[in-house]
Amino acid sequence: MMGKPLAAVVSVGLSKFGRIEGKYGRELFFDAFKEAIDGCPNLETRDIEALYVGQMSEFYEHQGHSGAIAANWTRLLPIPSIRTEGACASSGAAVALGVMSVHSGLCDVVMAGGIEKMTHQPTPFVTEALALASDFPFEQWNGLTFPGLYALMATAHMHEYGTTEEQLALVAVKNHGNAMFNPKAHLPKKITVDDVLSSRIIAWPLKLYDCSLITDGASCVILTKPELAKKYTDTPVYIIGFGQAADTIGLYERASLTSLAATKVASKKAYEMAGVSPKDIDVAEVHDCFTIAEIMAYEDLGFCEKGRGGKLIEDGETNIGGRIPVNTSGGLKAKGHPVGATGAAQICEIYYQLTGQAGKRQVEGAEIGLAHNIGGSGATGVVHILRRGD
Amino acid sequence: MMGKPLAAVVSVGLSKFGRIEGKYGRELFFDAFKEAIDGCPNLETRDIEALYVGQMSEFYEHQGHSGAIAANWTRLLPIPSIRTEGACASSGAAVALGVMSVHSGLCDVVMAGGIEKMTHQPTPFVTEALALASDFPFEQWNGLTFPGLYALMATAHMHEYGTTEEQLALVAVKNHGNAMFNPKAHLPKKITVDDVLSSRIIAWPLKLYDCSLITDGASCVILTKPELAKKYTDTPVYIIGFGQAADTIGLYERASLTSLAATKVASKKAYEMAGVSPKDIDVAEVHDCFTIAEIMAYEDLGFCEKGRGGKLIEDGETNIGGRIPVNTSGGLKAKGHPVGATGAAQICEIYYQLTGQAGKRQVEGAEIGLAHNIGGSGATGVVHILRRGD
Repeated sequence: MMGKPLAAVVSVGLSKFGRIEGKYGRELFFDAFKEAIDGCPNLETRDIEALYVGQMSEFYEHQGHSGAIAANWTRLLPIPSIRTEGACASSGAAVALGVMSVHSGLCDVVMAGGIEKMTHQPTPFVTEALALASDFPFEQWNGLTFPGLYALMATAHMHEYGTTEEQLALVAVKNHGNAMFNPKAHLPKKITVDDVLSSRIIAWPLKLYDCSLITDGASCVILTKPELAKKYTDTPVYIIGFGQAADTIGLYERASLTSLAATKVASKKAYEMAGVSPKDIDVAEVHDCFTIAEIMAYEDLGFCEKGRGGKLIEDGETNIGGRIPVNTSGGLKAKGHPVGATGAAQICEIYYQLTGQAGKRQVEGAEIGLAHNIGGSGATGVVHILRRGD
Repeated sequence: MMGKPLAAVVSVGLSKFGRIEGKYGRELFFDAFKEAIDGCPNLETRDIEALYVGQMSEFYEHQGHSGAIAANWTRLLPIPSIRTEGACASSGAAVALGVMSVHSGLCDVVMAGGIEKMTHQPTPFVTEALALASDFPFEQWNGLTFPGLYALMATAHMHEYGTTEEQLALVAVKNHGNAMFNPKAHLPKKITVDDVLSSRIIAWPLKLYDCSLITDGASCVILTKPELAKKYTDTPVYIIGFGQAADTIGLYERASLTSLAATKVASKKAYEMAGVSPKDIDVAEVHDCFTIAEIMAYEDLGFCEKGRGGKLIEDGETNIGGRIPVNTSGGLKAKGHPVGATGAAQICEIYYQLTGQAGKRQVEGAEIGLAHNIGGSGATGVVHILRRGD
C-alpha cells in the first residue's frame, strides 16, 4: 500500500545552469527563489519558517555561512537557516531535512535548496575543491581525484559484468540529447557515441564526455505539510518516501567497487516508506556525475538486475519514451552539476514531470518519480520518492 | 507554565580541548563519542539512527564530507549523517536538528556533535579560514577579520553605554578562572585584570586576553524522545525550548552594533517554547568568542537591562556563586573554541551542571540551564533551554 505523504512540494525554482558571469552564488539562489515564489501566488514569503541550503564547498567563493547569506539575500530574515554539506548530496540532504521539519509539526512551510558558483575558478582549483569530498589522508594525499575514483569503479564494472565503453557513451548521448529540451540546461547538444569515444581521456575508461560539467547554479524547493498543500497550489506533489545513508569515505574500505551501498540502503528505506517498488517508478533523476555512475544507479536502485545496467541503456529503456526514463533534465552530465545545488534541482525536475510542466521532455502520464543524489564516491546517498497529487 | 520537553539528552561526551597533536578531527570526534557511549551503558550503538555533525570549515584539514566521516569513524554506518555549517554555530544548529528529528517521530535516538581541528595550521591561515563566516565581497575583501568585527561592536558599546576595558577584562578573568576546575579545558589559568589590560592589542579595545582560543576539539550529545529517556539513564536532561535565527551576514547592514538580533530572536522563541523567563535560568553557557560578546549576550538574553552588562560582571553576578553563573566551563575564552564543536560542547556543560557532574565548578541546585551559540558576527544564533529531569 502506498505510504502516507510526509510533505508536499508546492513550488520549485531553478536559476539558469551554466557559466554565469557577474553573479555571486547568493544571487543565483535569489533567481531560483524568485522563480519558486512567482510560481506560487498564494504563498507569502512571510509564510516560510525555515531554510536549509546545500553548498558543497567554501573554497569556490571563499565563503561559508551560506545558510544565513541565503536568508539575507532572499529577505527571509530572521528565520532559521542552515547550510548542509554532504558533498554533492548537500541539497538532497537539505530537502530531507525540510521534509523532516514539516513532518515534525514545528514548521508549516519551509524552503530547501542549494547553491554552487564554480566556473570562475580555474579547473585545477575546482578539481582540488571537489576532492575535499574524498578522504584526505588516504585518497587526496595520494593524488586520487574524482574522475580517478569513478574510473576505478568503471574498470571494475567492465571487468565483472562486461560493461563496454560504448554503453557508457550512450548515457552521455542520451543526457545531452534530453538537455536540448531543457531551457535551463548548461550543455544541450546532439552528440554521438563516436564523439564520446574520441573525446580526450580524463581517467581511462572515462573520457571528457563521460564526465559531468563544472556549472554555476542554484535550486529551490518549497515544502509544506500535506494537509496544507492545497492552500498553496492545485497541483501539489507529495513526498511519500525518503532515505539517506552513509558509507565509508574511502573507496579502499568497501566490499564492492561496482555498487554503492549508500544507494541501496537509502533507496530500500525510501521504497519501504513509500510502499512502492522500482517497477512503480515512472521517471527518475539519478546521480550521473560520471556515465558509470548512472549505470550503477540503474542497478542499485533496482531498475534492472545487477550487472545489466549497460544493457538497459543499450536497449533504450531509460530514454524518454522508454520503460523508465532517467535524467530527462539532462542530468548532471548535461543540465550541469553545480554540486551543492544538484540534489534539490533533481527534485525540481521530478516536480515538473509530475505536474506536466516538463515541455518537450515530458514523460506522459508520470505519476511516481524518484530522485537519487550521491555525495563524493558514495559516502552519502539520499533518495526521495514523489507522487503526483490527486 | 513550563513547556513540554521536546527531547531528552541522555549522555554527552567531549574530547580533550586544546592543542592536540597527532590526531585528525575525526579521531577527536571518536574520543567524544566514546565518552558519550561509555557514559550510557543501556544504549547500544545500533540504537543510534541519525547523526548531525557541526564543522565550520573544510580549510583546516582540507576535508569536507564530515558527516559521513564521523559515521564511518564511529562505526555507525550506514545511518544517515550530515554536516551542518553555520560558522561557529555549526553544532548548536546540529543539536537543534537532532531535537527536531526525534520530535518528528522519525527517529528514536540520534546523535549531534561537532568537530574542529585547527591548531596544526599557522595563525594567519586560521584567521583567514575564520573569516569565511563573514561576508566575502564587503568584509573579507576589505581586510576585516573577526577581532576587527567584534572590536567595532566593543567600541560602539563603550561609546553608548560607558562599558570599560576593565569590565571586558573581568570576563576573561572569570572564564580563565572557571576553566581551572574543568579538566577538559584548553587554558585554565589564574589571571588578573592587569594581565588582560597589558596583553598585546589585537584590535583595540580587544587585547590578546579578550579573544577566545584557537583550539582542537570535538563534542557529542545523545538525544532521544522524552518518553524513552528513562530507558537509557536515571538522570536525563530535557530540552524544553530552542530557537534559531538568522541576521544579515554583514555588520554594515545592521540597525545596531551593540546588540545581536539573532540572539534576541532565538532566545525569545526558546523562552516562549520553554515557558520560562531569563530570571528562571540557573546557569548559562554563552558565546564568548570575545569578551565583549559575553557582555552583549548578558543583555540580549535578558540577564540584565541593555547597557548594564559591564555592571553585571563587575558586580560578580555571573561568577559561580553569583545570581546567574555564566560560562562555568571556562567558555570559548578558556575552555577553548574549536569552532564547529562549540555549540554541542555548551550543551555538554549544561548537562553536567543539571546532573550534578560539574565537580568543583558545580552550581548548587541548578535546575534550568541555557546554551547560547553564535555564528560569525551574529548572522546565526541558536539558543537551547534545558531542564533537569525529575
